[in-house]
Amino acid sequence: MEQLHYFFIILATAAFGFLTVYYLFSSISKIKVDDASANRIAHAISQGAMTFLTEEYKIIGIVLIIVALLLEIFLGFYSALTFVGGALCSLTTGFLGMKAATLANVRTTMAAKNKGEQAAFSIAFFGGGVMGFAVASFGLLGLGLVFYFFAEAPDFIAILTSFGLGASLVAFFARVGGGIFTKSADVGADLVGKIEAGIPEDDPRNPAVIADNVGDCVGDTAGMGADIYESYIGAMVSAIILATTTPSYNFLTYKTLPIMLSVLGLISSVIGLSSNAFLKLEPAAMLRNATYLAMTMFVIASAGYLHIMQLDMQLLVSIFLGCLSGIVIGLITEYYTGSTPIKNLAESSRSGAATNLIYGLSIGMESTAAPVILLSVAVIIAFFHGGGLFGVAIAAVAMLATVGITMTVDAYGPIADNAGGIAEMAHFGPQVRSITDKLDALGNTTAAMGKGFAIGSALLTALSLFSAYSEQAHLVAINIIDPLVMAGMFIGATLPFIVSSMTMRSVGSAALKMVMEVRRQFREIPGLMEGTTEPDYKRCVAISTQAALREMILPGVLTIITPVIIKWTLGTSAVGGMLVGATVVGVLLALMMANGGGAWDNAKKYIEAGNLGGKGSEAHKAAVIGDTVGDPFKDTSGPALNILIKLMSIVS
Amino acid sequence: MEQLHYFFIILATAAFGFLTVYYLFSSISKIKVDDASANRIAHAISQGAMTFLTEEYKIIGIVLIIVALLLEIFLGFYSALTFVGGALCSLTTGFLGMKAATLANVRTTMAAKNKGEQAAFSIAFFGGGVMGFAVASFGLLGLGLVFYFFAEAPDFIAILTSFGLGASLVAFFARVGGGIFTKSADVGADLVGKIEAGIPEDDPRNPAVIADNVGDCVGDTAGMGADIYESYIGAMVSAIILATTTPSYNFLTYKTLPIMLSVLGLISSVIGLSSNAFLKLEPAAMLRNATYLAMTMFVIASAGYLHIMQLDMQLLVSIFLGCLSGIVIGLITEYYTGSTPIKNLAESSRSGAATNLIYGLSIGMESTAAPVILLSVAVIIAFFHGGGLFGVAIAAVAMLATVGITMTVDAYGPIADNAGGIAEMAHFGPQVRSITDKLDALGNTTAAMGKGFAIGSALLTALSLFSAYSEQAHLVAINIIDPLVMAGMFIGATLPFIVSSMTMRSVGSAALKMVMEVRRQFREIPGLMEGTTEPDYKRCVAISTQAALREMILPGVLTIITPVIIKWTLGTSAVGGMLVGATVVGVLLALMMANGGGAWDNAKKYIEAGNLGGKGSEAHKAAVIGDTVGDPFKDTSGPALNILIKLMSIVS
Repeated sequence: MEQLHYFFIILATAAFGFLTVYYLFSSISKIKVDDASANRIAHAISQGAMTFLTEEYKIIGIVLIIVALLLEIFLGFYSALTFVGGALCSLTTGFLGMKAATLANVRTTMAAKNKGEQAAFSIAFFGGGVMGFAVASFGLLGLGLVFYFFAEAPDFIAILTSFGLGASLVAFFARVGGGIFTKSADVGADLVGKIEAGIPEDDPRNPAVIADNVGDCVGDTAGMGADIYESYIGAMVSAIILATTTPSYNFLTYKTLPIMLSVLGLISSVIGLSSNAFLKLEPAAMLRNATYLAMTMFVIASAGYLHIMQLDMQLLVSIFLGCLSGIVIGLITEYYTGSTPIKNLAESSRSGAATNLIYGLSIGMESTAAPVILLSVAVIIAFFHGGGLFGVAIAAVAMLATVGITMTVDAYGPIADNAGGIAEMAHFGPQVRSITDKLDALGNTTAAMGKGFAIGSALLTALSLFSAYSEQAHLVAINIIDPLVMAGMFIGATLPFIVSSMTMRSVGSAALKMVMEVRRQFREIPGLMEGTTEPDYKRCVAISTQAALREMILPGVLTIITPVIIKWTLGTSAVGGMLVGATVVGVLLALMMANGGGAWDNAKKYIEAGNLGGKGSEAHKAAVIGDTVGDPFKDTSGPALNILIKLMSIVS
Repeated sequence: MEQLHYFFIILATAAFGFLTVYYLFSSISKIKVDDASANRIAHAISQGAMTFLTEEYKIIGIVLIIVALLLEIFLGFYSALTFVGGALCSLTTGFLGMKAATLANVRTTMAAKNKGEQAAFSIAFFGGGVMGFAVASFGLLGLGLVFYFFAEAPDFIAILTSFGLGASLVAFFARVGGGIFTKSADVGADLVGKIEAGIPEDDPRNPAVIADNVGDCVGDTAGMGADIYESYIGAMVSAIILATTTPSYNFLTYKTLPIMLSVLGLISSVIGLSSNAFLKLEPAAMLRNATYLAMTMFVIASAGYLHIMQLDMQLLVSIFLGCLSGIVIGLITEYYTGSTPIKNLAESSRSGAATNLIYGLSIGMESTAAPVILLSVAVIIAFFHGGGLFGVAIAAVAMLATVGITMTVDAYGPIADNAGGIAEMAHFGPQVRSITDKLDALGNTTAAMGKGFAIGSALLTALSLFSAYSEQAHLVAINIIDPLVMAGMFIGATLPFIVSSMTMRSVGSAALKMVMEVRRQFREIPGLMEGTTEPDYKRCVAISTQAALREMILPGVLTIITPVIIKWTLGTSAVGGMLVGATVVGVLLALMMANGGGAWDNAKKYIEAGNLGGKGSEAHKAAVIGDTVGDPFKDTSGPALNILIKLMSIVS
């Protein structure tokens, strides 16, 4: 096949993906919402989310312009162009996905009220699908264009990497900004709602409650989407670079393989999605089967493709390993956030918050071992039996190829969560609430799977990018015994700690401001406690917005300039050491925070389900404190680290 | 000079050190305690500590015999012999230091009652001195003998390393066992005392209170002593090996330099100690000046020695850097555990335990940056301008050469703490208690300094050992791009997380058992709450003892066999990767835990001093929860990691 043929296939698949997005989006937006109260709440959420996104995009825009200028000066016009292109694709994806989420949340609530569980599930699932397929389609379109126009350019690798850099930069700010927003609102609402005033979390009298729901959209939807989009691009970019630098793979068929695998993944994902329409299964089975079905289809299609194109069949080992380890890490995450560990954690809450916290941290720490050992083994097998470094990169591509469906499942969660909030605030009664609760709980379980993919792919992508960096910098070896490398490594290793520290503190201080504001409103607005007046939701949204925007800048700048400073002062090999240090520590810390946070969350829910005394018991109070600490762990600092490690590799 | 001359100097200095130990010990033991109540309490503490130590030594003995047999088979008789020698020195040091501590605690209380602050301070300080100078003297004696008898042996390096291994193995078990003991008792006593029954921490009615005091002796004294002893030996061993493997330093004058520096350090420490007798300063100034004086003397004496022996004057740079970075890390630790961060942390407690915990974790994470960057810079300067890898090892030796005085200051802390407990339990009234409280607070500040030295020296020693390992394994380079190295590194990086997880969970579950036992006693022993009957202290001591002994085995075995398994499955270069991963993550996690834990502790004390509502306020309750989480951080898991990284290097 010639380059033009590949281009047409990629373009056609992207178009097919966009059609899917259009279908999903319009099938949601055409549903009418006939409840004034629900509509008003949904409007407040949607408005808050859009306001935040607009403000956030303004700041990201400034950073983009500065970086684009620097790229123009140092790498030339085309790199600056693809950089902006990569960033714009990510921004558009985030915007679309969030728009869909803010439409789907209230329609899910209404469907739960009027039509029942299955219909409600479908809407939330379709809403998530907009984000899922937008990520996949924009990724294919963008990379397809870059490949078609610049594959023959002498500085192709710089141009390609710049495209990835655009995606990374947006992802970092979206994740950190969204993460701080969502958790400052959540922690603030929890603290006031549960501890101070004795009001339930989703009560409309709580002024922070709209901000909390907005947070689910901007953090868990837009932030997660940008994150996964970046991994998706990063995996393909590093695989293409490694194909170029490995003599035995330096052919068009191999250089296009990463994109072609994503083409197969997108088609498999659409099949997985539409299986929803044919098999009328339980929602839980549905979410799971859609993923498994898509992955199986993908592996089979890849095998066929490798065979037909007469490519190295060793690569199938890596493809299979990539998919398998994604699933297994998901299952490990599920174990640590949903099984015996949760019961023991809940048990430990009986002697107070301190033992709950000690036990939760200990679960988080323990949970790092299995995924890391699994991935290490996968990397070794992929390297020795699956095509060398290129094989490792292909494993990362394979893990993310079915991003259409895995991201759909991820984005489903916050929509279901929001739907529950709207049902509560609109006073739809326990029956509706029980449906949305069920859908929400489902989202929490599948979120574990999604996080497994996010972390697993971040590690593999970081390794691939790192290998690509070494190949590019003509480093045949990075010798740890060299003191400069060692110093770089130690300094790099502190970065994940610093960024975690900054983001956690931001959440803490913004939550504190939120608590003060809520207290002020209860004090100054007459009739609020009695429920006769509405609280000033907007002030709370504004607090989270300002905090998120202000606090996301410093970690971002730090992440970008540290590699540059180290390169100037300690040299290229120290940058290699720095990447290693940041990656190792970043991956472990991210795993610990994600799983620890998930465990606290679910232990609280386990007690709330009526165990160990249920809501209001001493154990419950302790578990709430654990959950509040876990919130910034799992949704702010942890995810920020996923991107930190990739962004640093790409900047380098 | 000939080898025999060196040997005599070393032996004479060790003898001088032992005389100092004897003088300090006898000047404490000859003091009579004339209060029956204080005597009874002190006896209970001393008996509990000795029982634990005996049981602990039995288990360590079994491990020693097994490892000695393996060494005999694989490395020969002399290695097994020095291994046992190294271990016995450490065990004897621990025993002596703890014996002195259990004599000094009650005598400090009595002096506070009868003679006032200065006298009480002197006794506690002298009590700490026994441990400090025992560490220094046994270290010199042991290494002097090994050097004298085996320096010409063909397998000298194996024999020398085995001596270090003996020290490391004892240190690991003493640290982990002692750490679990002390914190399970402390957390258990806190939980019941403060939260459940409303009784103050040091109230004699609390059955866990004796166990808590025993814990201070076995964890903070014996455990810390074994830890520092191991660093002291490890630094010298790696420096000697690196002198042997560096052609330009492979002469007797350089090979003996590490031991000779420690000789100078011991003499300087005695001068620092005796300055106490001449300058009648405030206790706070005393503790600080003794250290600074000893260090200044040591640097001057070293300069003189290098000059007279016509050695490479570059090494003076490394010596100076070692001392300076020890002090600066101590000051950084003091900042993070005693200044603005503490006030902010206390402030964050006002909105509850969750924000206190988030903020405390964030302080711990941030505090990793400065020491690591400082040490990285120090390593680079030492390497390029201070004598290469040998210079880096010499910096570690210099940091620990004045161990006599730094360890004295460290061991002073738990004695003062214990003295306060005894004063409270013996009902000596507020005046006595205010003196012991002041001495105790002083110990907390200087403990920060001590922890700075422990961590800084652990990092430098680990780096030196790591370099020595590479030289020994004839690895000229450990290439991170090699997937086996990378896999080893990731697996190594999980180990500190796993060991932390295990030790924290052990503390949590033992504390829970303690709470149950205390509840049982209050329920079943009539008159306990009214103070008319004595609680059954022994049962509580037994609970901590059993928990500590049972739970210390698994982490120990894991640490020893992981390098062996990785070597078998992935090969030698993967072991190098594993060491790097474990060291990087271990150092950062240890710093985070030590400083985070210290910050929580001091924030609680800051509130107890009357700020933000003082004792009993909501902020105080939140701070107590933070402190309880911080306890296993700073005194169990954190310190265990210091040794983990060194032990793994030595095992490799």
